[in-house]
Amino acid sequence: MGRRVAIVGTGHSKFGVRLDVSLAELAYESIREALDEARIGLDDVDLVVVGNAGGWSSEPLPAIVVNEYSGLSGKATLRVEAACSTGSSAIKVARDAIASGDAEVVLVVGVEKMNESPTPTVVEFIGRAGNYFWEFENYGLTFPGYYALYATAYMFNYGASEEDFCQVAVKNHYYASMNPKAQFQRRITVEDCMKSRYVAWPIKLYDSSPITDGSAAVILASEDVVGKITDSPIWIEAIGASSDTSNLSKRQNFLGLDAARKAALQAYKKAGLDPEGVVKQLDLAEVHDCFTIAEVMAYEDLGFARRGEGVKLVRESQTYIGGLIPVNLSGGLKAKGHPIGATGVSMAVEIARQLWGRVERGRQAPVKVGRGLAHNVGGTGHYAYVTLYSLSKPRG
Amino acid sequence: MGRRVAIVGTGHSKFGVRLDVSLAELAYESIREALDEARIGLDDVDLVVVGNAGGWSSEPLPAIVVNEYSGLSGKATLRVEAACSTGSSAIKVARDAIASGDAEVVLVVGVEKMNESPTPTVVEFIGRAGNYFWEFENYGLTFPGYYALYATAYMFNYGASEEDFCQVAVKNHYYASMNPKAQFQRRITVEDCMKSRYVAWPIKLYDSSPITDGSAAVILASEDVVGKITDSPIWIEAIGASSDTSNLSKRQNFLGLDAARKAALQAYKKAGLDPEGVVKQLDLAEVHDCFTIAEVMAYEDLGFARRGEGVKLVRESQTYIGGLIPVNLSGGLKAKGHPIGATGVSMAVEIARQLWGRVERGRQAPVKVGRGLAHNVGGTGHYAYVTLYSLSKPRG
Repeated sequence: MGRRVAIVGTGHSKFGVRLDVSLAELAYESIREALDEARIGLDDVDLVVVGNAGGWSSEPLPAIVVNEYSGLSGKATLRVEAACSTGSSAIKVARDAIASGDAEVVLVVGVEKMNESPTPTVVEFIGRAGNYFWEFENYGLTFPGYYALYATAYMFNYGASEEDFCQVAVKNHYYASMNPKAQFQRRITVEDCMKSRYVAWPIKLYDSSPITDGSAAVILASEDVVGKITDSPIWIEAIGASSDTSNLSKRQNFLGLDAARKAALQAYKKAGLDPEGVVKQLDLAEVHDCFTIAEVMAYEDLGFARRGEGVKLVRESQTYIGGLIPVNLSGGLKAKGHPIGATGVSMAVEIARQLWGRVERGRQAPVKVGRGLAHNVGGTGHYAYVTLYSLSKPRG
Repeated sequence: MGRRVAIVGTGHSKFGVRLDVSLAELAYESIREALDEARIGLDDVDLVVVGNAGGWSSEPLPAIVVNEYSGLSGKATLRVEAACSTGSSAIKVARDAIASGDAEVVLVVGVEKMNESPTPTVVEFIGRAGNYFWEFENYGLTFPGYYALYATAYMFNYGASEEDFCQVAVKNHYYASMNPKAQFQRRITVEDCMKSRYVAWPIKLYDSSPITDGSAAVILASEDVVGKITDSPIWIEAIGASSDTSNLSKRQNFLGLDAARKAALQAYKKAGLDPEGVVKQLDLAEVHDCFTIAEVMAYEDLGFARRGEGVKLVRESQTYIGGLIPVNLSGGLKAKGHPIGATGVSMAVEIARQLWGRVERGRQAPVKVGRGLAHNVGGTGHYAYVTLYSLSKPRG
């Protein structure tokens, strides 16, 4: 393997409806914070990787516009996109550039402005995250519709209830209430969730992540320069990545996401972790809860619970702080918000700050093993990236 | 630096108006050819990098759709975009993934379907390759308008004529006439060009690259496995990348592209080439002639001619075979066509096949030093990538 790579600075904008800023201004909020945190200048950056799904944006070629506004003109740059796992793929591209020896310091920024577009456009775009021809055009499936297939299959096979799924929303709103960058700061009850309107049965409004504007940034540095920048790097220990058919009629079942399972096993293998007892080797996880069912499946796909037993973790509150493994202490996509291109980078920011022990009281995980996991899914498991972040320098 | 990386297989679709195929089918034409040429199977591929600018496409998330159609579901994948230099940025991402040790074999496919969209949409999208707010919205500049600023400045400062620019089109149509994959196979004269209608004075229709559908693919492999695949790898010797302001009113002058100059100097430095005598160290170059003025500026930005003397190379036919350095023997963007996301990959395919000595008679460059250069520009020099390909394994 190439050189080891670490996070040396993090930045995070306020997530929400951000009609007050342009795409470039929104990106700059987190870029500025990350550069300040790393105490480096614009000249120290060798490459800028912009994660942006776009499609609804007035800037179809966002990398150059974001760079220019941030004073980074002249730098090597490109945009990366992998649907809702765009942010994690951008981190992989940046990590590889450094590990290969081609760059020392890389800025990764994920940014998305989803509210500037008329709602039908955003919903249509996200609907097209499936197989356009077969599902969207012929059967009219929308994105909540895809996950509703998984939710109903999970309920039928494993006896989960709508209330169980609502408990995930309750937890994530609870932690978001302590995260000033989250889109929603209001705690909700299972009753609130159960009373919310159906989007695609059994998925209700409160089971669903919102339409969000936001950005997140990390500065990555090579092991050769990291010591000059920080005493507490967060190392990228391993990245697993996989994909799956975009044609849901070809999936074997609707009980988990194959791509996520494969990505997790890859990451565990690269980091030398035992997939069986992986919860003991993690302090926390940020998982891709675009809908509440997705978080339950993530528990199983990541090996936190056996197949069909993810719902038990929910019922036993095992993914709160103090439980088996705290999950989505940021509020998750559900309540922190889900600006598509930013989400994977936001997960990295959250995990770094958790491992540094400096997030808000009440949502700070105990740091014991010094390792966190980010699970970032594109489409309905069309893409999956699982990334392990660690306080310890990985083996060479 | 990390591991050395080589091209071990190439594929290229017919460029043109391809309403006969979907985006995935179009991509597969070159993917199949590249896999066959490398004599490897789908299972040998570790990562798929898809270069696609999109924006007008019915598949806004192209990576997964291309992968699935090609039987590559399950592979790690992402899309890369850097405007018209998308293809070269995709090659960089793939090269870094291998050089870092994370992958052994990577498939890069660049693909674009530009004719499926109504023409005004494509023109608007390309117009937005500049700074949307300042130039497109406020001043109404379109993409030919940007390059017209450069053409008029070049004419005023260095005494070039419209006929000089037309000579570039004549050369590129001449070579395209021998390239069965080119969009235009018809030779043209300076008179044909001069009689064509103005798009943005002094740029005429025949000074302009067309709206093109097409794909191109390369298989890249690490130095550790390359010997198992081929006896004649084409090594990626160096990649230079830079960017520039998207706000043309901030450019110092309209006589060359700063980003291209910087990218070239970076690439020459990495490869240990003397920028002064670089033509002697190259067998051929594929340059980004989106408009004829762009090819003339490329001669100067790449160091083939001094500032203001690029037009002399045109007048003396120095960029035909037998001249100082043959340029755009494929027909270039001008006559081979310019499917945005595919162009940088198409340049790589052309250079590899030229260095292997197996393109069509009449357009085969003499191979003496065993090195070719690809110059790929995004926007009006907003992005620039310069890549050196070599028959010789680069120093470690």
